[in-house]
Amino acid sequence: MIKTPPKGMSDLLPNQLELRNYISSTILQTYKDFGYSQIQTPSVEHLENLTSNLGGDNEKLIFKILKRGEKLENSTNDLCDFGLRFDLTLPLSRFYSNNKEKLPTPFKAIQIGNVWRAERPQKGRFRQFTQCDIDILADDSVFAEIDLFQTTATALSKLGLNFYIRLNDRRLLHFLASEFEETEIAKVLVTLDKMDKIGEEGVKEELVSFGYSLTIVENFLNKVKNATLKNLKNNFDNDIIENLEKIIFFTQNFCKVVFDPYLVRGMGYYTGPIFEITTSDYNLSIGGGGRYDDMIGKFCGQKVCCCGFSIGFERIFSMLEENHFKIPMQNKTAFLIEKGLSKQLLAQIYENAQTLRLNGEKVCVITRSKNIKFQKQQLLNLGFTNFKDHTI
Amino acid sequence: MIKTPPKGMSDLLPNQLELRNYISSTILQTYKDFGYSQIQTPSVEHLENLTSNLGGDNEKLIFKILKRGEKLENSTNDLCDFGLRFDLTLPLSRFYSNNKEKLPTPFKAIQIGNVWRAERPQKGRFRQFTQCDIDILADDSVFAEIDLFQTTATALSKLGLNFYIRLNDRRLLHFLASEFEETEIAKVLVTLDKMDKIGEEGVKEELVSFGYSLTIVENFLNKVKNATLKNLKNNFDNDIIENLEKIIFFTQNFCKVVFDPYLVRGMGYYTGPIFEITTSDYNLSIGGGGRYDDMIGKFCGQKVCCCGFSIGFERIFSMLEENHFKIPMQNKTAFLIEKGLSKQLLAQIYENAQTLRLNGEKVCVITRSKNIKFQKQQLLNLGFTNFKDHTI
Repeated sequence: MIKTPPKGMSDLLPNQLELRNYISSTILQTYKDFGYSQIQTPSVEHLENLTSNLGGDNEKLIFKILKRGEKLENSTNDLCDFGLRFDLTLPLSRFYSNNKEKLPTPFKAIQIGNVWRAERPQKGRFRQFTQCDIDILADDSVFAEIDLFQTTATALSKLGLNFYIRLNDRRLLHFLASEFEETEIAKVLVTLDKMDKIGEEGVKEELVSFGYSLTIVENFLNKVKNATLKNLKNNFDNDIIENLEKIIFFTQNFCKVVFDPYLVRGMGYYTGPIFEITTSDYNLSIGGGGRYDDMIGKFCGQKVCCCGFSIGFERIFSMLEENHFKIPMQNKTAFLIEKGLSKQLLAQIYENAQTLRLNGEKVCVITRSKNIKFQKQQLLNLGFTNFKDHTI
Repeated sequence: MIKTPPKGMSDLLPNQLELRNYISSTILQTYKDFGYSQIQTPSVEHLENLTSNLGGDNEKLIFKILKRGEKLENSTNDLCDFGLRFDLTLPLSRFYSNNKEKLPTPFKAIQIGNVWRAERPQKGRFRQFTQCDIDILADDSVFAEIDLFQTTATALSKLGLNFYIRLNDRRLLHFLASEFEETEIAKVLVTLDKMDKIGEEGVKEELVSFGYSLTIVENFLNKVKNATLKNLKNNFDNDIIENLEKIIFFTQNFCKVVFDPYLVRGMGYYTGPIFEITTSDYNLSIGGGGRYDDMIGKFCGQKVCCCGFSIGFERIFSMLEENHFKIPMQNKTAFLIEKGLSKQLLAQIYENAQTLRLNGEKVCVITRSKNIKFQKQQLLNLGFTNFKDHTI
C-alpha cells in the first residue's frame, strides 16, 4: 500500500483546510453579495467535449478515464470515453447550453471546484487544484466586465491582498499586429507574451526567426510600446477603446486597473477584453479572464456572449499560508476522558458538552491518550485552548 | 459537442446547489461543534491502493485513469496507474498513516467530498456522489462509537429528519453463525443481509442450497431471531454486549438506537460494532458505519483502531428536494440597467449597490433583458425579490 498521495496532488491537513475554507468562503460570499448563483458540473466530462480544440494546451494534459467492461472490449482502438475536466469554463458552456431555459438571461454564474491536469509535478504546479470562477453569460455589454472587476476586486480586498488588474483587448492586439499575415498572428502574440521571460531583444529575435523583416518586427513592437488608450482613440475602433475606459472608470473605487498592451493571455478562445490580476507584493499573477463570445455557440449553435474572471486559488492559499495568515478563530474546549469513569460522571460530561455546544461553542469529548503532553500540544494546534481533564 | 453530462452524473442548478450547500454546511457545522477536524485527500488515488481487496464490491466499479505519455508506451499490458476514489475511508487510512505524527491521538476527522463508482446508472444511483464521513482514529474505546452517534444524530436532527439507528456487532454475528464453517461465515452473512428483500423463507432456501442441513440453518435463524442484549449477556463476551448497551444509553438523549441482530453491513473490513440509520418516514437507509480496527495497519504495519460513521448525502438531498424544503433565505435586490444610461447615473447605481452590500445585502447589478418578464421570473426563482428598474 502506498502512503503518499499521487504525485502533484496534496493531502490537506486540518489547519490547511481551515485556511482554504476561509479563503474560498470569503470569495464565495463576495460572489453571492454581487448576485452571482453557484452551479456545479461533474468532475468527469465527455472526452469528445474536452478534446474539441477549445482547451488549447490543456488538451494535452487530460487525465483520461478508461472505458469499462463491454465498452472497452468492443473498441480497443479507442480506450477512453471520459476525462477529468481541466478547467471550469468548458463544462460551464456545456451546462449553460443544456439548461439555459431554466436560467435568467443574463446569467451570473459562480463555480468553485477542482480541476485536473497531467502536468509534470513541480513546486507550485499541481495536478489537482481549485479554481474560483465567475462568469456572466448572455451579456454582450461592458456591464459584464465592470461587474466581474468590481466583484473580484472586492473578494481579493477582503483577503487583505495588494493587487492591480492589467487590461487589454484581443481585437486591439490583432489591430497592432495587422502587418503580419492573419494566420500568423496567434503565433506572433504567443511570442509577444514571452516579453517577461526573454525581454524585448528575445522577442525581436524570435519574430525575425519566423521570417519577418526587422522593419516589420520593430514597427510592431514600437506600436505596442507606444499604445495608449488616448493615442489609439482616433486610430482604432472607438467603441472598443471606450469600453476599456469605462471598465477602468467604474472600477476605480475598487482597485487600480491599468491598460497594458503587452497582455496577451494564452487561451485561444478570447474574443474581446482580456485581463489579469497581479499582486503588488510578489509580482505574481493571481487570476485572470476575458470575453469569449464564441464558445457556447459550439454547443448550442446559437451565439451567446460571455465573459469570465477566475481567481487563482492555489497561489493565494500558498501566499497566505507562507505569511502565517491568522484566521479569526473561536476558542474551543476539549474534555479528556478515561476508560473506567463512572456512568454517572460520563453522563454529566456528555450533558455539559452538549449544553456548551448549544451555546455556540465547539466541544471535543475525546479519550485521554497515554502521551497526554503530545495530545494536548496537537489539540492546541487545532485551536483547542480549554482543557477539562477527567481521570479516574 | 455533447450537451448533457456523462450518464449517472448531474449538473447542479443554482437552487439545487443552495439546498446541497445548506445540507452540507449544517452537517459540517455540527461535526465541528463536536470537535472534529476537516481533512481532504485528492480525488485521484493510486490504483494499487484502490485494488487492495479492502474495497469489497466497489473495487469492481473503479473509474480507471489511463497512463500518460511514456509511461503508457512502456507498459501497454497495464494501462492504468491511478483511479478515482470510490469511498473516503480508504484514502483516509492512507492519509492517517502518512501524517499521523502531525495529528492528535485519537484523531477526530471530517471528510466531505465526492466519490465515483462506475455503476449502471439508474434512479437514485449516481456515478459521482457526495459522502459526509466522520471517523475517530486511534481509539479502541466505546467512547468513539458514542461520540460518532451523538454527532451524527445532532446533525440529522438539525435537518428536521425523523430517524433511528440500528446497531449490531460483527463479532456477535460470527458467534451466532458459529455452527457454519469459519470460511463460509462471510457468505452466510451476505445471505442473512437479504432478509429485507427475499424474506425468511428465501434466506432459508439460499442457505440450504449452500449444502447445510435444514436443522443447522433453522437453528441459526432462530438464534438470530431470539437474540436480545439481555439473553446474550451470559452466553457471549460480556464486554461486547456492555459496549452496545453503553452506546444505546449514552445516545438516548440524541435519538432512538435499537439493537438489530439482522444488521450485517456489506463491507468486509468491519471488526466490531456496526450501525445504520433508517428514516422513520421512508424506511430508507440514510447512513451507516462501523468499527474497522485492521485497515490502517495495512498501510503502516501498526494496528490503529478506528471507527467511522457516514451520512448518505444524496438520499437526504433527494428527500428534502422532493419535500420542497425551504432554506432560510435573505431578501436580495436586483438593479436592472440598460446600455445608454448616463455615466453619472451608472456611477450612482454602482455606489448604491455597493453601499447595500456593505450593509449585508445581496445585490445583483445586471443588464436588462429584452424579455423582461422572463428575466424577472427567473431572478425571482433565485431569491431576488426587490427590483430596481433603470431604463433610458
